[in-house]
Amino acid sequence: MKIDILSLFPEMFGPLTESIVGKAVEKDILDIEVTNFRDFTTNKQNHVDDYPYGGGAGMLLQAQPIYDALDNIEEKNGNLGRVILLDPAGRKFDQSVAEELSKEDHLTFICGHYEGYDERIRAKVTDEISLGDFVLTGGELGAMVVIDATVRLLPDVLGNNESASGDSFSMGLLEYPQYTRPSNFRGMEVPEVLLSGNHQKIAEWRKKESLRRTYQRRPDLLENYEFSDKEKEWLREFERDKDVEIHGKG
Amino acid sequence: MKIDILSLFPEMFGPLTESIVGKAVEKDILDIEVTNFRDFTTNKQNHVDDYPYGGGAGMLLQAQPIYDALDNIEEKNGNLGRVILLDPAGRKFDQSVAEELSKEDHLTFICGHYEGYDERIRAKVTDEISLGDFVLTGGELGAMVVIDATVRLLPDVLGNNESASGDSFSMGLLEYPQYTRPSNFRGMEVPEVLLSGNHQKIAEWRKKESLRRTYQRRPDLLENYEFSDKEKEWLREFERDKDVEIHGKG
Repeated sequence: MKIDILSLFPEMFGPLTESIVGKAVEKDILDIEVTNFRDFTTNKQNHVDDYPYGGGAGMLLQAQPIYDALDNIEEKNGNLGRVILLDPAGRKFDQSVAEELSKEDHLTFICGHYEGYDERIRAKVTDEISLGDFVLTGGELGAMVVIDATVRLLPDVLGNNESASGDSFSMGLLEYPQYTRPSNFRGMEVPEVLLSGNHQKIAEWRKKESLRRTYQRRPDLLENYEFSDKEKEWLREFERDKDVEIHGKG
Repeated sequence: MKIDILSLFPEMFGPLTESIVGKAVEKDILDIEVTNFRDFTTNKQNHVDDYPYGGGAGMLLQAQPIYDALDNIEEKNGNLGRVILLDPAGRKFDQSVAEELSKEDHLTFICGHYEGYDERIRAKVTDEISLGDFVLTGGELGAMVVIDATVRLLPDVLGNNESASGDSFSMGLLEYPQYTRPSNFRGMEVPEVLLSGNHQKIAEWRKKESLRRTYQRRPDLLENYEFSDKEKEWLREFERDKDVEIHGKG
């Protein structure tokens, strides 16, 4: 996969050389190139921004440096692939978007900064993506989040021990509680079943706790979930527990 | 504000020295300290992880190094403040959470890695926060996103020209389209009204386009919005436009 990034702060992408994304680059699974679009300005002062038409506070990124930087990437690569802009008005990023992007050969990210950008930049964008309903200083952190979530899904990026198939969301449920040594830490004990060596009971306990956590914290994830008879029984148990808790507090 | 971060990859936090967060540190509004909790292991090999009880793939972060690192921070600061863990099971991060966190004196972030962590780590956590329904390699990028969104809300961090009060979400609507020079770029013209110098008309156009974009892309944001008579009229216009579009396509 080829990833191009347009940014005024190329040094912000240091984190991508660490961890999983860095490993993907080392394994030649991924090629990341960061372009400072300030290098494509045509004015003497190398300004990339200007005042908004119609007045108002703040400066806007101009279309010209970004268009010219994109032209350059297109010339070098033959295409731009999907052109992604992080914007609060965009499609909400989630695991299904990451899976979709992980199937592409080429992604190009445009990172905004300052108060905003010239609307005409959107004409080059194929995907506006939003991380959520919050405002960041610039698009760099958002782009790194999308890249990290996407790249770890590429074949051969995660090692055998870190398969993505056991992730939260891949099975539609939150993860069950996990424990490692020591079995007693500052007085807190590991649940006995996990020390029992009974694999069937352990699997059942994990399934139940996974369901319990999802029921308690993200019931919305259960809307389209197909429950087995056993799971329906557990659900009734969680509901009874909740009633007891409410009455206990009342 | 004091921000403590527990991470196995302190060098990943380079981006925080750039841009707004870096400026906040320079202005002494913010003090960020990153602790590598590997320095707090008590085993000879400096391992921070171990196999899960009950079997399964992957390694889990152990409780001990994180507890000891937290104890150290508490000793130095007198408190831990809010202790934040980025986790898909957590409360969804949004602008209101950023505003809430920006009022605190001390935040401590725990960044997980590997497959997961010992459940007993949660006992020290006051806030589990989720960026959204996707899986990242580790907690570092998520922590940086939360820190960036939070720190830019601190008093005196943003300059006069970059006030946070005009943000998306702060008014409940998405931002209107903006344009800067040149007025004609590659054949794309700036809307005439923005060149008119008529401030009342410009303000009205912006309000309408802001509402149009929100109506088209994030109608959920309008659920609790109180419409003026003028805005109700615009809404009917957007609805008619949509009908025309649908019939045009049919």
